[in-house]
Amino acid sequence: MIERAKGTKDIDVEEKIQVNRIIKIITEVFEKYGFNPLQTTILERYETLAAKYAGGNEILKETFKLNDQGKRDLALRYDLTVPLARYIAMNPNLKMPFKRYEIGEVFRDGPIKLGRYREFTQCDCDTAGSSNMLSDAEILAIASEVFSRLGLKFIIKVNNRKILDAMMESFNIEEDKRDSVILSIDKLAKIEVSGVKKELEEKGFKNMDNLLNLIFTNDLNDVKKVVKNDEGINELKEVVKYAKLLNVKNLEVDISLARGLSYYTGTIFEVYLKNSEITSSIAAGGRYDKMIGNFIGNKKIPAVGISFGISVIKDALKDKNEKAVTQFYIIPINTLNESIEIITKFRQNNLKCDIDLNNKNISKNLEYANNLNIPYVVFIGKEELKLKKIKLRDMKTGKEKLLSLTELILKFKKF
Amino acid sequence: MIERAKGTKDIDVEEKIQVNRIIKIITEVFEKYGFNPLQTTILERYETLAAKYAGGNEILKETFKLNDQGKRDLALRYDLTVPLARYIAMNPNLKMPFKRYEIGEVFRDGPIKLGRYREFTQCDCDTAGSSNMLSDAEILAIASEVFSRLGLKFIIKVNNRKILDAMMESFNIEEDKRDSVILSIDKLAKIEVSGVKKELEEKGFKNMDNLLNLIFTNDLNDVKKVVKNDEGINELKEVVKYAKLLNVKNLEVDISLARGLSYYTGTIFEVYLKNSEITSSIAAGGRYDKMIGNFIGNKKIPAVGISFGISVIKDALKDKNEKAVTQFYIIPINTLNESIEIITKFRQNNLKCDIDLNNKNISKNLEYANNLNIPYVVFIGKEELKLKKIKLRDMKTGKEKLLSLTELILKFKKF
Repeated sequence: MIERAKGTKDIDVEEKIQVNRIIKIITEVFEKYGFNPLQTTILERYETLAAKYAGGNEILKETFKLNDQGKRDLALRYDLTVPLARYIAMNPNLKMPFKRYEIGEVFRDGPIKLGRYREFTQCDCDTAGSSNMLSDAEILAIASEVFSRLGLKFIIKVNNRKILDAMMESFNIEEDKRDSVILSIDKLAKIEVSGVKKELEEKGFKNMDNLLNLIFTNDLNDVKKVVKNDEGINELKEVVKYAKLLNVKNLEVDISLARGLSYYTGTIFEVYLKNSEITSSIAAGGRYDKMIGNFIGNKKIPAVGISFGISVIKDALKDKNEKAVTQFYIIPINTLNESIEIITKFRQNNLKCDIDLNNKNISKNLEYANNLNIPYVVFIGKEELKLKKIKLRDMKTGKEKLLSLTELILKFKKF
Repeated sequence: MIERAKGTKDIDVEEKIQVNRIIKIITEVFEKYGFNPLQTTILERYETLAAKYAGGNEILKETFKLNDQGKRDLALRYDLTVPLARYIAMNPNLKMPFKRYEIGEVFRDGPIKLGRYREFTQCDCDTAGSSNMLSDAEILAIASEVFSRLGLKFIIKVNNRKILDAMMESFNIEEDKRDSVILSIDKLAKIEVSGVKKELEEKGFKNMDNLLNLIFTNDLNDVKKVVKNDEGINELKEVVKYAKLLNVKNLEVDISLARGLSYYTGTIFEVYLKNSEITSSIAAGGRYDKMIGNFIGNKKIPAVGISFGISVIKDALKDKNEKAVTQFYIIPINTLNESIEIITKFRQNNLKCDIDLNNKNISKNLEYANNLNIPYVVFIGKEELKLKKIKLRDMKTGKEKLLSLTELILKFKKF
């Protein structure tokens, strides 16, 4: 029995065409905002991935370990952020800010669930070495432009971890218990205020009504009256100001947004689809000012980044995407040599085309083109050649048309 | 000490920009010839990679093995061909011919030499399920177009393994010794006729002069007079005929071309640079009619493919490539808000640009832009804003110019 490794998945042609289209748009936007491509290695030293300030114990349990011929302990990277930190550590002469993007496979040997794979693509861009809120706003602008270009209806929710911290401080929640409270608050969208309240009570937190009400009203001015430390509020306002100047669309402040654990230190954001069955975020990120610097060893390297969920974006675009890259399928009818000359002219004009390689009959050829979702078939027979024409068939409508080669090329040439 | 895994290498920004440019051109050409993208997994079952008709024992020795949490034996793929065979085996309903390309990382735990890494990129395109020589010619056309577009001076050497076989048959070299003879003949370019002769003598082959002379004259008509089986000659002539119709450039028949071991069954070819220090091939491939079918289990799946050497192509283009994707670096001089509005207009016109995020002074900013190889710097000061102009500095010449925003956009807009 020939099988794949458990928990892995090939990306079929049709799917990969869609993924490539998404990645092309994201890449174009990254580059417009001054981000450069970087390719770190998939193989890392286990020591690197297991370092104190790397991904933490939970993720380490899911890390694939292996050895090289020299018995060195290696592992497959589980994200692109630790390799970024490792890269910055190894290249002390990098000019800051270092704005890079990376798209690549990462590996997690976790339990297998629907839509979760042990090998999957991450697509990240990060600015390291700037604490300017303009950096955060640029990241939001990237999200806004990517999803606008993809034609998706989206909403970007933004918050700042320092606001949550300041509120909890004002409500006398001890520092070591705040992560637990944040984890519950993070469920607001799912289980509503009453559910969060119940969960917090079960965890032993009492008198949380005022805190929850404050969060629920979602008004920064109200928050400002309550908190002692307004650093987070000021940062968030600055991000929102810059975001407006950068023409960011559909941005909403949501002070209930918590984004899990202790990794984030400032701005946090998540992007959701509007009116969609897909309720998980399609991109998310935030500011993490400590991780890289701590990883390297007490250097100050503030950073902010975003991760796009390629797979969920692909699902969201399911019906919108083109299904083929090949535009024309040429069927020679006893005219092989002439057909090859004609397909060569197609290709010289940058038209993407294919030709029957297996001497199939016409109906088998049409079936093949149809199966590959190729939108046009071109018949080249002796009759057509005599007329200096070719016959173009629109595979969607079934309509056929006689055209000269020049007419056809002018009609479809893009470049 | 923070280090990479031994034998691996990050692809730095400057290098990755070049790699991306090469891959973009190759991908465009693949798609013009009707090839579709596929992404197989990096993790494979060890069993798959170790199967009888897979890569063979030599490569298996260099295969990275690992286990998942279920103690299953896994491995990292060592090429993209075995995963292609595995994919075809698992998808029996694929329509033939199956024309796919794949670009991805492969892993070999081999000895470390200059320019050889344990993790590297392969870039392949293959037609499976067609024995038509037009398929072989299409692959040659792809090579011709890729290297023409890259602006490299190249030569494509083509041969057919059946010709070598037929010649050896005619000279009574036993079948089980032919691989050994082929390995020596393959060194013709390196050690010349006399060296090959000597090596063959040392291996115990005598009276090889006539064979070597025949190969050396490189004349298919001479060969035809000697061999009983002219299948290879006919195939090669057919490939050359189609290649001409497909406008393949710089194609040369070279009957000494052997391309190593028993994997190939028909057409073989290698692409070299003309007048270059780089003497290794920059792309190579051929027809392998047995491997996929045998792997799957006695099915007939003829195939032909090419592999591009991304890394060596990058070296060949070293001086020709652009070094940055970012076109403009904006330096606000006490005009942050206005500058952000201007950079937003730049980006709305698809210009790739970056802006000072760290409030650097002018000379630090120029140093930064220079370090990142950004070709233009834009100064936006109060004076310029009053005149409704911006100051553009060409970083190569140092020349500066006052322009209106519209003038600048019209000058540089591409889309």
